[in-house]
Amino acid sequence: MKARVRRRKFWGWGYEGEGLTAEELEQLARSLAERLGLSELKAAQPPTLEEIRLRAPRVTPPRTLAGFCSAEPWERAEHTLGKSFRDLVRGLRREYENPPDFVAFPDSEEQVGMVLDWAAGSGVAAIPYGGGSSVAGGIEPDVGEGYAGAISVDMRHMGRVLEVDSASRAALIEAGALGPQLEDQLRPHGLTLRHFPQSFEVSSLGGWIATRSGGHYATLYTHIDEFVEGMRVLTPRGALETRRLPGDGAGVSADRLFIGSEGILGVITRAWMRLQERPRFRSSASIGFESFDDAWQAAREIAQSGLYPANCRLLDHAEAVFSGSGDGSRAILIVTFESADHELDAWMARAGAICREHHGEVPEGTGGTRSDDSAAREGAAGLWRSAFIRGGHFHDAFVRLGLVQETFETAITWDRFPEFHAGVLEATRGALAEQCGGGLVSCRFAYVYPDGPAPYYTVVAPGRPGSELEQWAAIKDAASEALIRLGGTITHHHSVGRYHRPWYDRQRPDLFAQALQAAKRELDPAAIMNPGVLIDPRR
Amino acid sequence: MKARVRRRKFWGWGYEGEGLTAEELEQLARSLAERLGLSELKAAQPPTLEEIRLRAPRVTPPRTLAGFCSAEPWERAEHTLGKSFRDLVRGLRREYENPPDFVAFPDSEEQVGMVLDWAAGSGVAAIPYGGGSSVAGGIEPDVGEGYAGAISVDMRHMGRVLEVDSASRAALIEAGALGPQLEDQLRPHGLTLRHFPQSFEVSSLGGWIATRSGGHYATLYTHIDEFVEGMRVLTPRGALETRRLPGDGAGVSADRLFIGSEGILGVITRAWMRLQERPRFRSSASIGFESFDDAWQAAREIAQSGLYPANCRLLDHAEAVFSGSGDGSRAILIVTFESADHELDAWMARAGAICREHHGEVPEGTGGTRSDDSAAREGAAGLWRSAFIRGGHFHDAFVRLGLVQETFETAITWDRFPEFHAGVLEATRGALAEQCGGGLVSCRFAYVYPDGPAPYYTVVAPGRPGSELEQWAAIKDAASEALIRLGGTITHHHSVGRYHRPWYDRQRPDLFAQALQAAKRELDPAAIMNPGVLIDPRR
Repeated sequence: MKARVRRRKFWGWGYEGEGLTAEELEQLARSLAERLGLSELKAAQPPTLEEIRLRAPRVTPPRTLAGFCSAEPWERAEHTLGKSFRDLVRGLRREYENPPDFVAFPDSEEQVGMVLDWAAGSGVAAIPYGGGSSVAGGIEPDVGEGYAGAISVDMRHMGRVLEVDSASRAALIEAGALGPQLEDQLRPHGLTLRHFPQSFEVSSLGGWIATRSGGHYATLYTHIDEFVEGMRVLTPRGALETRRLPGDGAGVSADRLFIGSEGILGVITRAWMRLQERPRFRSSASIGFESFDDAWQAAREIAQSGLYPANCRLLDHAEAVFSGSGDGSRAILIVTFESADHELDAWMARAGAICREHHGEVPEGTGGTRSDDSAAREGAAGLWRSAFIRGGHFHDAFVRLGLVQETFETAITWDRFPEFHAGVLEATRGALAEQCGGGLVSCRFAYVYPDGPAPYYTVVAPGRPGSELEQWAAIKDAASEALIRLGGTITHHHSVGRYHRPWYDRQRPDLFAQALQAAKRELDPAAIMNPGVLIDPRR
Repeated sequence: MKARVRRRKFWGWGYEGEGLTAEELEQLARSLAERLGLSELKAAQPPTLEEIRLRAPRVTPPRTLAGFCSAEPWERAEHTLGKSFRDLVRGLRREYENPPDFVAFPDSEEQVGMVLDWAAGSGVAAIPYGGGSSVAGGIEPDVGEGYAGAISVDMRHMGRVLEVDSASRAALIEAGALGPQLEDQLRPHGLTLRHFPQSFEVSSLGGWIATRSGGHYATLYTHIDEFVEGMRVLTPRGALETRRLPGDGAGVSADRLFIGSEGILGVITRAWMRLQERPRFRSSASIGFESFDDAWQAAREIAQSGLYPANCRLLDHAEAVFSGSGDGSRAILIVTFESADHELDAWMARAGAICREHHGEVPEGTGGTRSDDSAAREGAAGLWRSAFIRGGHFHDAFVRLGLVQETFETAITWDRFPEFHAGVLEATRGALAEQCGGGLVSCRFAYVYPDGPAPYYTVVAPGRPGSELEQWAAIKDAASEALIRLGGTITHHHSVGRYHRPWYDRQRPDLFAQALQAAKRELDPAAIMNPGVLIDPRR
């Protein structure tokens, strides 16, 4: 086993030693208690490894794999749960029901192949594992009946940038590279993938591609999908590689069969990714709107303007408070343009004019292009950014404080947005009242498209000790039912995983699922790849 | 049968009565003879229907279908050949080897379903047919062994815009709508799909989606793929419909399985399409470059600038002459910005500056935004545009004049472009010399991406009467071999069809083809859908 400098927590977000300070946690407890009208909130202690009882491994690695596999309790515990509310609660309860029997840490495609061969021959489920940040049950070894065991295939030792093509602004990157690791290797070339999901620090390129991760850009290149130039996938039947092409029209896109496949067809081992030059110019504004209706109409007009801001994130009144960007009297639209090529005054001037037409309060002096790095770190935009990056740690803290706190996200066309949004809020608030005696729901637009937004909802409410999972399940059911009934998607970028299956199964056409099952049977005849995710394997 | 106002030619481009005037044809003959160093070029006469001998139908429509099917010779002849060089030569030779046994003209999805049911039950191949403009053999009933017959399913009676959503700028459109028909219905709403492939007048929405057609925008939204918000497909196993969503991340994209499926999985019956407002502002410039290297470097920098011009089409020196835009001393880069939202001076100013940095000759006064319609019709840009739209008729004329004239297109990353381009030119010129004793090859960039261009090559050379097909086959082989060997795609937007299969089979991963075959078996168990296109059906 290679030495590991830092260990990731096995129960929560990020690395050991990270998270809120004791003081921050106390302050958060006080402010949340006040906002939710509770007397006091006390933080539960995270589990220690000694407190965790893991089922004995049902299978052990054969001699040929043993050198890069581990059945150490820490590794098994770390690979058991994702990072959703449901995962965190179970972690804090010391419930680690479905640990992998062991974890493989291949450092080459050959080793990945050896693992898959053994798993297929032994009837053992294999779960591709990047950074473990799934909030949809995508990496939990809860694989259902009929398997002799389940193992995680952790790609962390395959994280190199193998080739950089500066002329085309592209790089060949191994799929196990986590966000910071990948950016560190690109930085000397003046290039960046600029894909910054909230999980950036603990999620991998392969995971992003497998789950259609949403990144930095609020318009245009929202999903990782758009940055994939070509890729290589190892299926149980062997490897396949697509050509790196800037654009293609030769038949059905092979890349698109694997983008979003969530590990059910094979392991993505590397990809040629489209990159950006590091931006030199920035222009940013935070625009207040008394009326949420005005605010989203402004966001719509900007999304349809052809200006393509890098950021166009709308926080509703409650979300502005949550993120520390506002006092609750205004919705806030954060608009940022960035470029490595040109000054952005004309772009921001027009976006500002659109906002004013919709009664937005555009701060004096907005519109100047700044070329210093601090521009990205100041004002409401900066506040929101740092809250965003630490979001995973705050999530942990909320759950430790006994609150039901979670997010869900979707997308809907503009024409249906008002009714949809009202319906989702009503369903969620109704469930919150019933389950928790109240609670808060806020909404932001994570992304905006010419034809509609991707609304992202955050829920926080008091939990009843011992009943948090049932409370959340009822709220999630109510919200998801509304999303699907009112025409949205069950997920815009959090993936389907295992948790979203009931609603995804209603959303996707049956015949498509059958076609995908057929494709899976072809590539994964023993049905070992991440069973239970996305579709039921038919063996 | 519904009355048809205009009949499409059964042997060439467009509608009866259209095409070059006798005078234009003579003028073209003179100028081409001069440029190719030939004494004289005489135009062959197009076939008349009476000259065509069609194989007797092997199957006839059952009573339930008879009301909307036709085995009239005109219909069968019209549905026999596409519009490539190979098709036109065979048409002029009166060789109609593979006519459909009859043509169905359904006017509802129910009727499409009746046709597919009958075909599946009868072992008859069914070929979805939009406008018939395929240049890749995509609609020719050359379906191979093992079928009792082959029929075309012509979607022309399903061309309605069913719903318009102005808030999201989207419309639900039946797949049989041809370009002008679709735009006519959108115009009263102030909206436009703005998808203008060269085949615009004689190609359909369903055809565009099935073949990943390339449209108006030279950057960003190049393929029709990006405009599909949701779709409905009728497979032999039944209908499936995806949700209309502005963005989605729920698993593998169902839309993407059918986009580019070239009719092998079913018939696309309708789609929700993302639209544009009609542009009010335009800024256009034609920039000359002495050096082609400078010109493509400028195109690259613009493609990577984040300015996203609607047009960024580079014509090499020869192409500039061909299209009437230049005298051969300069490559020409046509850059056009357009917007329904804002003036474009800042955009064009920066694009102009980039061109000047690469020694481009930017005309004085370039950069002003114009808001009158004539802006699109003047100058080199306007000349190129009208030549482009009449391209199909010119193609017919070249072939009638006995020339070997055809195009092929691809895409490649910037880092490999110089070597790739040199290799493609060398292979093509070598084959031209061998087959035709010389000839001309020109190149334009049809589209430019941040990571590479989509070069489009045009070939014209003297044909040997009776040997034109063999001449072109040898040239196409040599060029295609170079495209594939040097890392490009066999097609960026002309589709794979039947003609590109030998090279596509080398380009796409084998395991992907097997997965696609498995998906096809699931949706089309009798393997009746457009057999021979894209993959070999496995029954």
